[in-house]
Amino acid sequence: MRIAALQGPPVTEGAPEALARLEDAAARAGAAGAALLVTPEMFLSGYAIGPERIRAAAEPADGPSWAGAAALAAQHGIAIVVGGPLLADGAVYNAARAYGPTGLLSAYEKAQLFGEVDRSQFSPGARTGVVFEHAGWVIGLGICYDIEFPEFARRLAHAGAEIAAIPTANMKPFTTVCTRLVPARSEENGLAIAYANYAGPEGPFDYCGLSVITGPDGEDLARASAEGEALLLADLDRQAVLETRRRVPYLADIRHDLYDLR
Amino acid sequence: MRIAALQGPPVTEGAPEALARLEDAAARAGAAGAALLVTPEMFLSGYAIGPERIRAAAEPADGPSWAGAAALAAQHGIAIVVGGPLLADGAVYNAARAYGPTGLLSAYEKAQLFGEVDRSQFSPGARTGVVFEHAGWVIGLGICYDIEFPEFARRLAHAGAEIAAIPTANMKPFTTVCTRLVPARSEENGLAIAYANYAGPEGPFDYCGLSVITGPDGEDLARASAEGEALLLADLDRQAVLETRRRVPYLADIRHDLYDLR
Repeated sequence: MRIAALQGPPVTEGAPEALARLEDAAARAGAAGAALLVTPEMFLSGYAIGPERIRAAAEPADGPSWAGAAALAAQHGIAIVVGGPLLADGAVYNAARAYGPTGLLSAYEKAQLFGEVDRSQFSPGARTGVVFEHAGWVIGLGICYDIEFPEFARRLAHAGAEIAAIPTANMKPFTTVCTRLVPARSEENGLAIAYANYAGPEGPFDYCGLSVITGPDGEDLARASAEGEALLLADLDRQAVLETRRRVPYLADIRHDLYDLR
Repeated sequence: MRIAALQGPPVTEGAPEALARLEDAAARAGAAGAALLVTPEMFLSGYAIGPERIRAAAEPADGPSWAGAAALAAQHGIAIVVGGPLLADGAVYNAARAYGPTGLLSAYEKAQLFGEVDRSQFSPGARTGVVFEHAGWVIGLGICYDIEFPEFARRLAHAGAEIAAIPTANMKPFTTVCTRLVPARSEENGLAIAYANYAGPEGPFDYCGLSVITGPDGEDLARASAEGEALLLADLDRQAVLETRRRVPYLADIRHDLYDLR
């Protein structure tokens, strides 16, 4: 399966800008034969825009911005993982939702909130190990800080994920998340990861780019630079996943009797 | 605290060679002001030498090879982490024991057995999160494949470890364990790691060197090359550990309510 990850500057003009950029990326990714497009964290609204603007932009799951993303998935025949502020039971979550050509595939709310920027804007999610099937692959969802926790990635692997789709908004100076921790999550789980970051400033942050699609052995299949826009493309091979997990059988060898992480 | 990690060729002549080389390393590390010396996996006997030779070399905890290592720790005023085959209740374990200037500090048996080489030679250990105090620091023990599992390193961190002492026998082609996974274990736990490997051939294996002492941010403090001998030295600073854990608060932020790894 060919997958795509989008890197670009933060969205500053809200959903109209986000949906226009999403349409351009979906068209290009679809034309390139990709079956999955992953976009940066909170793409529909912007991320570090403050709790008032976040709450004003938050929509329930049937809101117009989410519907706009779903329509683009249908129009371009591609699965899209897109983030935004989700309003549910009066709370606002940092959400990522996966839409396929025929509708909603999966939904996730960020569990590991990062610092004041997340805690001031969002309620924490309560679920991990969220996966869905698409194009014959099992794909897991996580958001930014989530994937820095090995427990989180392990849960996705235990749930059957072969690919993790990770919208992110990772800022300087934390570049080793992009270059060391995300590849380690891949290698220790035999898990491909599409990690889609912003590049450029937003509020107090300067996002560090370095978006990546890693293979199940932790090696880069496609890597963006620290600056500018990119639409990364990579081809995943199920045999490579199986062969990697056979050669380095971490998932089979875990001492569940000692660790009890399930 | 200054710590040391030894890299060299596998031991081929058993305990007499091992203790002679250990004495040389302890003398040099002690003279350099190190308070802790970590040596490669199964240093007292050799590692991939087959189940018959392993069983013949195995000693109970009060055996002469272990006593020899303890005597060197006392003689040179340094803590030594040394591996060998431990005989206990009729079973043979891949063990690592820590001796300080005044005697035994801690003992550990490898929990995550690696492939046929371990499974044909050893019984699996049943404990993780094994730590001891020395020179004002909390030091955890693990062996080779153990540290490749994030659960194992997290257990050490939960047990209070600030440093992990990891004897290893890591072979080609698994060099990314040395260069990616061990640094990731450091970074995701705010944990310094002394990872002491062999370089050169033993039986079916060609050990890949690249021994390392990482700081709590995952960066190399000292790194050996892929070949040859080395006595790595690095200075650890408690303020650097605390500052790293404050700046990147993974241990404080883990969602124990969701992951249940303790």
